Amino acid sequence: MGQPQQSEGAESETPAPAGTGAGKPPLRVGMVGYAFMGAAHSQGWRTVGRVFDLPLRPVMAAVCGRDAAAVRAAADRHGWAAAETDWRALITRDDIDLVDICTPGDSHAEIALAALAAGKHVLCEKPLANSVEEAEAMAAAAEAAHARGQRAMVGFNYRRVPATALARRMVAEGRIGTLRHLRVSYLQDWLVDPSFPLTWRLRKELAGSGSLGDLGAHIVDLAQYLAGERLAGVSALTETFVRQRPLPHGPTSGLSAASADGTGEVTVDDAALFTGRFASGALASFEATRYATGRKNALRIELNGERGSLAFDLERLNELSYHDATEPDAHAGFRRILVTEPDHPYLDAWWPPGHGLGYEHTFVHQARDLVHAIAEGTTPDPSFTDGLQVQRVLAAVEESAEKNSVYTPIAV
Amino acid sequence: MGQPQQSEGAESETPAPAGTGAGKPPLRVGMVGYAFMGAAHSQGWRTVGRVFDLPLRPVMAAVCGRDAAAVRAAADRHGWAAAETDWRALITRDDIDLVDICTPGDSHAEIALAALAAGKHVLCEKPLANSVEEAEAMAAAAEAAHARGQRAMVGFNYRRVPATALARRMVAEGRIGTLRHLRVSYLQDWLVDPSFPLTWRLRKELAGSGSLGDLGAHIVDLAQYLAGERLAGVSALTETFVRQRPLPHGPTSGLSAASADGTGEVTVDDAALFTGRFASGALASFEATRYATGRKNALRIELNGERGSLAFDLERLNELSYHDATEPDAHAGFRRILVTEPDHPYLDAWWPPGHGLGYEHTFVHQARDLVHAIAEGTTPDPSFTDGLQVQRVLAAVEESAEKNSVYTPIAV
Amino acid sequence: MGQPQQSEGAESETPAPAGTGAGKPPLRVGMVGYAFMGAAHSQGWRTVGRVFDLPLRPVMAAVCGRDAAAVRAAADRHGWAAAETDWRALITRDDIDLVDICTPGDSHAEIALAALAAGKHVLCEKPLANSVEEAEAMAAAAEAAHARGQRAMVGFNYRRVPATALARRMVAEGRIGTLRHLRVSYLQDWLVDPSFPLTWRLRKELAGSGSLGDLGAHIVDLAQYLAGERLAGVSALTETFVRQRPLPHGPTSGLSAASADGTGEVTVDDAALFTGRFASGALASFEATRYATGRKNALRIELNGERGSLAFDLERLNELSYHDATEPDAHAGFRRILVTEPDHPYLDAWWPPGHGLGYEHTFVHQARDLVHAIAEGTTPDPSFTDGLQVQRVLAAVEESAEKNSVYTPIAV
Amino acid sequence: MGQPQQSEGAESETPAPAGTGAGKPPLRVGMVGYAFMGAAHSQGWRTVGRVFDLPLRPVMAAVCGRDAAAVRAAADRHGWAAAETDWRALITRDDIDLVDICTPGDSHAEIALAALAAGKHVLCEKPLANSVEEAEAMAAAAEAAHARGQRAMVGFNYRRVPATALARRMVAEGRIGTLRHLRVSYLQDWLVDPSFPLTWRLRKELAGSGSLGDLGAHIVDLAQYLAGERLAGVSALTETFVRQRPLPHGPTSGLSAASADGTGEVTVDDAALFTGRFASGALASFEATRYATGRKNALRIELNGERGSLAFDLERLNELSYHDATEPDAHAGFRRILVTEPDHPYLDAWWPPGHGLGYEHTFVHQARDLVHAIAEGTTPDPSFTDGLQVQRVLAAVEESAEKNSVYTPIAV
Repeated sequence: MGQPQQSEGAESETPAPAGTGAGKPPLRVGMVGYAFMGAAHSQGWRTVGRVFDLPLRPVMAAVCGRDAAAVRAAADRHGWAAAETDWRALITRDDIDLVDICTPGDSHAEIALAALAAGKHVLCEKPLANSVEEAEAMAAAAEAAHARGQRAMVGFNYRRVPATALARRMVAEGRIGTLRHLRVSYLQDWLVDPSFPLTWRLRKELAGSGSLGDLGAHIVDLAQYLAGERLAGVSALTETFVRQRPLPHGPTSGLSAASADGTGEVTVDDAALFTGRFASGALASFEATRYATGRKNALRIELNGERGSLAFDLERLNELSYHDATEPDAHAGFRRILVTEPDHPYLDAWWPPGHGLGYEHTFVHQARDLVHAIAEGTTPDPSFTDGLQVQRVLAAVEESAEKNSVYTPIAV
Repeated sequence: MGQPQQSEGAESETPAPAGTGAGKPPLRVGMVGYAFMGAAHSQGWRTVGRVFDLPLRPVMAAVCGRDAAAVRAAADRHGWAAAETDWRALITRDDIDLVDICTPGDSHAEIALAALAAGKHVLCEKPLANSVEEAEAMAAAAEAAHARGQRAMVGFNYRRVPATALARRMVAEGRIGTLRHLRVSYLQDWLVDPSFPLTWRLRKELAGSGSLGDLGAHIVDLAQYLAGERLAGVSALTETFVRQRPLPHGPTSGLSAASADGTGEVTVDDAALFTGRFASGALASFEATRYATGRKNALRIELNGERGSLAFDLERLNELSYHDATEPDAHAGFRRILVTEPDHPYLDAWWPPGHGLGYEHTFVHQARDLVHAIAEGTTPDPSFTDGLQVQRVLAAVEESAEKNSVYTPIAV
Repeated sequence: MGQPQQSEGAESETPAPAGTGAGKPPLRVGMVGYAFMGAAHSQGWRTVGRVFDLPLRPVMAAVCGRDAAAVRAAADRHGWAAAETDWRALITRDDIDLVDICTPGDSHAEIALAALAAGKHVLCEKPLANSVEEAEAMAAAAEAAHARGQRAMVGFNYRRVPATALARRMVAEGRIGTLRHLRVSYLQDWLVDPSFPLTWRLRKELAGSGSLGDLGAHIVDLAQYLAGERLAGVSALTETFVRQRPLPHGPTSGLSAASADGTGEVTVDDAALFTGRFASGALASFEATRYATGRKNALRIELNGERGSLAFDLERLNELSYHDATEPDAHAGFRRILVTEPDHPYLDAWWPPGHGLGYEHTFVHQARDLVHAIAEGTTPDPSFTDGLQVQRVLAAVEESAEKNSVYTPIAV
Repeated sequence: MGQPQQSEGAESETPAPAGTGAGKPPLRVGMVGYAFMGAAHSQGWRTVGRVFDLPLRPVMAAVCGRDAAAVRAAADRHGWAAAETDWRALITRDDIDLVDICTPGDSHAEIALAALAAGKHVLCEKPLANSVEEAEAMAAAAEAAHARGQRAMVGFNYRRVPATALARRMVAEGRIGTLRHLRVSYLQDWLVDPSFPLTWRLRKELAGSGSLGDLGAHIVDLAQYLAGERLAGVSALTETFVRQRPLPHGPTSGLSAASADGTGEVTVDDAALFTGRFASGALASFEATRYATGRKNALRIELNGERGSLAFDLERLNELSYHDATEPDAHAGFRRILVTEPDHPYLDAWWPPGHGLGYEHTFVHQARDLVHAIAEGTTPDPSFTDGLQVQRVLAAVEESAEKNSVYTPIAV
């Protein structure tokens, strides 16, 4: 405890907030996939109406996966009313309004296209697809569906950290002025050990790419979102440090590339480094890796502008660092804003100042924003078109890396 | 995303966890009070079975408050099946197994004693009571009820931060050796502005005390918990910096001490500083204040022992700082443990490494631990006896402050 | 390199600064003692005229110690023109203007009184003396000498860290407003190992006290200096954790208290904790210890006022933390001022922004400020009267600790 | 004060260190240039023999610059025995053993070649030269002179920060294992303001390059030094954000490119970003800029290896961050080593633990190491050959930037 604003129980002086459901139209969600992302999205749907006042009432209608027993258990665990084993059946159900896609990237396009064709709203995990071609088809379908009143959003959840949302607001307010530099990295270390097994994330046919699509997609989106402008071109290096890894135990789930020695080939990048120019002329550097020993989830971004700077690190997600260069030198410095005040983004619905949020709250906020877009008929942000543009950046990175790092413009 | 262990949806190689409910006996919870603490406890009860495998199935049976419309809205908002306006009715309901008390301290004793008498398990927010006498009665009742199979726990939720739980484990393992120093503070700043209104927390008849009971209770409990031993005596200073404050708008809810000028008297401490000796001879300093400008929720504790040190700050709750003094000087230093690994307390149920938790997770963990204690027949930790002992420390602080700071032993 | 302002060598556009000596009157310094403090003061005297434009030209005339060979070597090492073995001879030399006392506290009073009587200016290391009585005599002598044109200063060098000097300037400008809290500690850990030998610092007859006089004197002075006001009273606990320690090797230099087992008794405090009230009503906590495992030189001070806060840690001495509470909550936060800008105290004489200073620079600055006071006839700050007042605080701490921590007013 | 090891003055139990001079052969230094770098080198030569036990006795024999009055004043200010206005005269003086070159890069080659030809040892500021051709001639001359007993060193002073020297030692001990990543940046902000004048550093004919040569040279050298291996190739982007700047006041010192409007053209890079591959396959990213708003002197380097990681930031130069990946996950974390212990590099000569050093100490250490190399006949580190190799990296960066960022191998 220890808080200013609120009082307890019967002593409450302010009326309690309106209920979460009474009389509101439902938004019936069907989710495909129920592993890590599925658990995170479930937490988002389960919580969002308990915390925010929403125009619609989210209903966790059904979850879908191939293994009947496992998906039944997942439904029970995460609170979904029904379980399905065929996503094609799920998307044709009349009692589903929104399809939430939490599968690996190789199935995003097929499911999303079918769901849009079936008249559903769609939330699709990032990266939008495993290729530019797939993403183009998805963006086109989303635009067509938009005209029919459907909404489609990509799950770049790191836009929904209160600190990054605050950073975006401050950039938009002109607080850092003309942008000169961005330095952006997403550092993890779970592949440092060469005996870590060959999971689906290390096979190109399933994951599309390695650190680039998994981590790089996040930082490309976040950098462009915060800058409020897009990359014009990139120059890239990629590397696979450990090329053979032991196969995982159990059924290998499509990992067909096994060698006789019980190992399989890593067919994606372990790390991707690239520099780039933004439309305005600002310079940027990017690094995505799973070999940054000791860095567990260090998504870091710093923006330097003529009037100030902003810096963020996901390992300290309740903080935003801000330097106001318009102050006198004698008192200027990077300040640590504890992003837990009621006038920070999303925060008025949560706890008193200083009572921090965690990773999963980004999914609550994502659900909140999507519900509003659907209810209010606005374009969800980021749209499939935004997701396509990120895909084009990733393709340019791969092209540059293949062409001796030559500077490669982003297709428009 | 960006994570090692898990795969998605149908590709899952590991079986999904067992469901949350099928076949498990229910634990039917009735909560009294629904403001800040009520919202936090609700989030705990709503989430705990979705994340942890529990021996019982928590059911959010009913919430209770005086204002019928408000409590109905709160039930709807937070997900309680029923609403009650009389806590006496609530505790006599047959379909309630556990009474969760989230009201201000002045009603804790009455409700808890009645609930225990009615055969219920009890979870009571801290501080246990507004006086030692009340707390003694509650501890005695809890011990008697314990023999009848009932469980009673105090809501010192800061024991359930993974970082503090890890610190406790490391102390118990002997990693810091003989304890020499503790320095403990809980710093907030929401009273710095003299125009902040006179809420119930600033009136002795409702809150019992000010910073001392609200913040000081937490740090006394946490310090003793981490040390694994108890305070022997204290020497204290307390102060009320701003003695008159404007009355809050609206019905003053029992704040009867209004002056003609629209202000009322602050009758609790604004700040409490005390030093103390632990049983082992270690020295400690404590500070609880609502006037530490810029510190929003800085519950900080550092322990120095002959073999190492540990430090924690609630404003960075996913981190624990550890100095291992058995290492060579050339490589020694305080290390920042990011407490998000699967072998850290509570963490195997949550997200991959580096994906941090927030404040509210302490209530999920509290619910988890209480459910286990009830199902397994163990003594919940902290018990009402522990809560009584904290109350005795707070009483000694007040006594010392009244007696010119003279060193005052803690009653046993 | 990498710096804005300056150009190199012959390309210089600005005229080089005036020389250090030509035509300036000398200030001939004689230093007593040449160990740690002597080395630090030597570095100060050797450097000050090379960096700052001074009204007088410091001359390192003579150093004094009992052992002829050792003092001769020290003179050679540190750059003193002559070596003396009798401080009484030193202070009567006509070619000495200033006596710089770097011996342990037990000889401060005798040397300082004699030097003042001999017409010399005096710089005396802290603590001013080993007792209030000695300090009173010294302050009285200094005041009398002041009227004769002599200057006397105490070596509280931590006032001369640019960051603390900046903090003082900001407090004086009203930037933090009415003061509510100070929390002050000086944490070291070199006594954690019980086999560390019994040096002179652990014997009351030589050192006067333990952590209290060595570390506590610094933080009492610094806290009062930054606050701009004085302590009114204190409540204290002191402790000696390890009471017997092995005798050091070699001649024991007056450590007469040896036991038969080769150990001797520690007769000073290992740690001192005290709380206090400032004249304005602000509350303060102090801790001085040599048992804070892993803390090497953590002199920390935080001040909370109605309009802002300031925080400093000597382990990061080029930084000052500042919170401006007059800013909107959405952008407020503790900022890290890198105190290396030309308009920060002392900094225009040093390097470009971001090129930090070290511990020893405090002695350069101390020498600079004393030279100015002597040349300009102003009262050096801190004066012997200031040193006496600190001594009275330390005496009140000891008295309170002996009297069961009872609140003890500071004698005026 | 507050320190373990030493005692004061006559009570000293350990003999004072041997003197700095008696009987030691002199090393007579003549320095060319006396601005920022000249002041820093002077502080180094003045202090080194007072702190370290050296095999030779440095003598500050003469300083040289074009303006007779200014160089005379600089000699007086910084403690040089004589002043010269012609560097050719200086290097032919019989009483000069070592020529210390502190001028801008355009004169390094000419002076160094002449000094080597004249039989002198040479210390040359970085970057070694303004072109690879010059650097090749200098390296060849240094090797020839080496055979004649002369020593030549480049002034990459950031190898001499105790924390970076410790990092090198730890890498060499195998503590971080196979290297995977380096991320290196040198961030300053003194050009953010477009009204900052066009100094010599912004003109290619004088400075050779901009951020690249000034800041980039440092980080290329430091990265290769810490890694213990060399860059194989780079891919680069450079940019000049502000192309016209006001001319500085006063004589423009060769800045002949003035426009009619009182501005002149910036002919060097403002920022340089490059990625690269090390010989072992490790990936690296580099950034050098003077537009990183709020970053004053942020030379940062992080190395990730299979067994651990190290990180350093020049703005906190007394600290080294270290992650030991061989520890159990539950207790692992980046630790902050306070690099002030006696068994850290250079530290046994300085102050007690926790009493930090500053920027200028790197020049004291540089002088120390060079004196040892000269006295002991070893090759100074970094040699002119090392300086040449850095020059080749910078040339490859420029070539890549001109060729559309194509990956460009480093010439061997």
